[in-house]
Amino acid sequence: MDIHLNCPIPFTDSDRVLLAHGGGGRMTHQLISQVFYPAFRNPLLEQDHDGCVFLMEEGRLAYSTDSFVVDPIFFPGGDIGDLAINGTVNDLACCGARPLYLTAGFILEEGLPLADLQRIVQSMKRAAERAGVQIVAGDTKVVERGKCDKLFINTSGIGIVPPGIRIAPDQATPGDVVICSGPIGLHGITILSARESLGFETDLKSDTASLNIMISELLHTIGEVHVLRDPTRGGVSGTLNEIAQDAGVDILLDEDALPIPEAVRAASEMLGLDPLYIANEGLVLVILPESRAEQALPLMRGFEEGRQATVIGRITKQSGEQARVKMKTLYGNYRIIDMLSGEQLPRIC
Amino acid sequence: MDIHLNCPIPFTDSDRVLLAHGGGGRMTHQLISQVFYPAFRNPLLEQDHDGCVFLMEEGRLAYSTDSFVVDPIFFPGGDIGDLAINGTVNDLACCGARPLYLTAGFILEEGLPLADLQRIVQSMKRAAERAGVQIVAGDTKVVERGKCDKLFINTSGIGIVPPGIRIAPDQATPGDVVICSGPIGLHGITILSARESLGFETDLKSDTASLNIMISELLHTIGEVHVLRDPTRGGVSGTLNEIAQDAGVDILLDEDALPIPEAVRAASEMLGLDPLYIANEGLVLVILPESRAEQALPLMRGFEEGRQATVIGRITKQSGEQARVKMKTLYGNYRIIDMLSGEQLPRIC
Repeated sequence: MDIHLNCPIPFTDSDRVLLAHGGGGRMTHQLISQVFYPAFRNPLLEQDHDGCVFLMEEGRLAYSTDSFVVDPIFFPGGDIGDLAINGTVNDLACCGARPLYLTAGFILEEGLPLADLQRIVQSMKRAAERAGVQIVAGDTKVVERGKCDKLFINTSGIGIVPPGIRIAPDQATPGDVVICSGPIGLHGITILSARESLGFETDLKSDTASLNIMISELLHTIGEVHVLRDPTRGGVSGTLNEIAQDAGVDILLDEDALPIPEAVRAASEMLGLDPLYIANEGLVLVILPESRAEQALPLMRGFEEGRQATVIGRITKQSGEQARVKMKTLYGNYRIIDMLSGEQLPRIC
Repeated sequence: MDIHLNCPIPFTDSDRVLLAHGGGGRMTHQLISQVFYPAFRNPLLEQDHDGCVFLMEEGRLAYSTDSFVVDPIFFPGGDIGDLAINGTVNDLACCGARPLYLTAGFILEEGLPLADLQRIVQSMKRAAERAGVQIVAGDTKVVERGKCDKLFINTSGIGIVPPGIRIAPDQATPGDVVICSGPIGLHGITILSARESLGFETDLKSDTASLNIMISELLHTIGEVHVLRDPTRGGVSGTLNEIAQDAGVDILLDEDALPIPEAVRAASEMLGLDPLYIANEGLVLVILPESRAEQALPLMRGFEEGRQATVIGRITKQSGEQARVKMKTLYGNYRIIDMLSGEQLPRIC
């Protein structure tokens, strides 16, 4: 169509997203060739059709989607772009799949600086490269100023589940332990502290990262992984409650073992939040038989994203409809860790 | 999780989308079980995981995504819900694929009446049933009042391309004709007339419809289809320009043959728009050898959505970089039909 550039062009502050960029005409093609193609180019995307077509071998496919509306769009440790790639990559990885192909749907607000869009798209490019996935189809819409907030990104993704892998929330079994791959609460607290209105600062960074390489190695080495889940919205507590209910089991957490950084704890206290409900974007909860934990932990710790992997709890018993997540507190008593009723704060991811 | 209802519950006007519906906690699960599950329930969706896993046979997959931001969300002939299903179904069908599975990502504005959301979701359910596709994964985000406009929907979809089918824009060949499946301009003009601010009324209805059944029959019966495209954003003109450039061919339209309804023509004139640039949502352009047209036309006319199928032009010659779309006018002279530079009006789809 237009010339497809190989490197991002430098935009000035006066270069903004216009309604015409979403019109499907010449301006749309310009945006594609100046911003999206230089970042995402690959033979599938370049089929230049309404969708792309590729050959797949027989097997089990994993398929997932997620929309991202995080505010602010840039934050310490990442931005809405790598968040959108890592989020869908991790959802696929938590199905036991090797993520392969992603789609990206952009909704842009008229007036968004093109330099911001380009920075985000470049960040998506790097995140996709790190995770070893390709963006093979996309879509861009533009809405009038004030009708969305800078930009929203939807990603969907497909991956292949290797033979023999069977990961599902209802596989959690008494005798299993729960491994948490790293520190809890970093993403949510980072986003909140990046909102000027909340008037507090931390040195924290979002943990946004793709976990598929570590998870793939884990599944390859340790056959018997039962459940994988990334505790994003709803936090560790929300995710474990879902697993408990799907599997009809009780889960017991050990408060003493929870890897909650001091800065997360302090900020949570100040905001009246519980770190167990705070969203994480580079964390995975791994549920597997206790006997495999001593093999899994060093393996996970060999990856930057699993460096602080630790056992935080265990599946205690089948309990059907009465399934509960409980925690043994620092003081030795037990409390019920329920699912969050409302929302702590909106637009964390 | 919560009780999964089988039929939609009746919401009152005071039932609104709250920020907590997007929090990933109890309210999110309530929304899923009260609104989404009753409409979309199927075994894949009910895997209740971060994504779904299913078996696929070896073959060529088509994969596509599209976001929908149409304003207004309800309009004569449809709403943002069936539009979102039909749009992605048609993109897959235009790759020559049999659409199978869709994902749906919702971005909701705080305060959206739950009754509106439910109406849209029920409309998606019916559109998915008509097209024979299943919604197998989804996501819901909620943003604060004023940070989006009622709701935006992203759909992605995958389908299987049957063996032997090879559809691509660059397959257009001199000697081919261009068949248009129905009347031009209905969707775009309907949306514009539904915006009160524009102060005109018509009896028109959007043509939003899924075309996959008709297209599948066409491909099954007539092997030699070269190109399929649905002329949505950018209209017939934008789509044909893309095909001309991808294939490096000249396309000649016959103005006399264009099926433009009188009401579309009148409204376009009033608004200073050209119907050839107006978005359609239930139209397909079929490019195939002239010799197959007499078989294709009656076949298409046997379907409601192809009832007015007609040849509107032909591929005249290879012209490489100089590829152009031209039109023989009613007066017998020729004019160039260029790609639209800007946008006629935003948020048509």
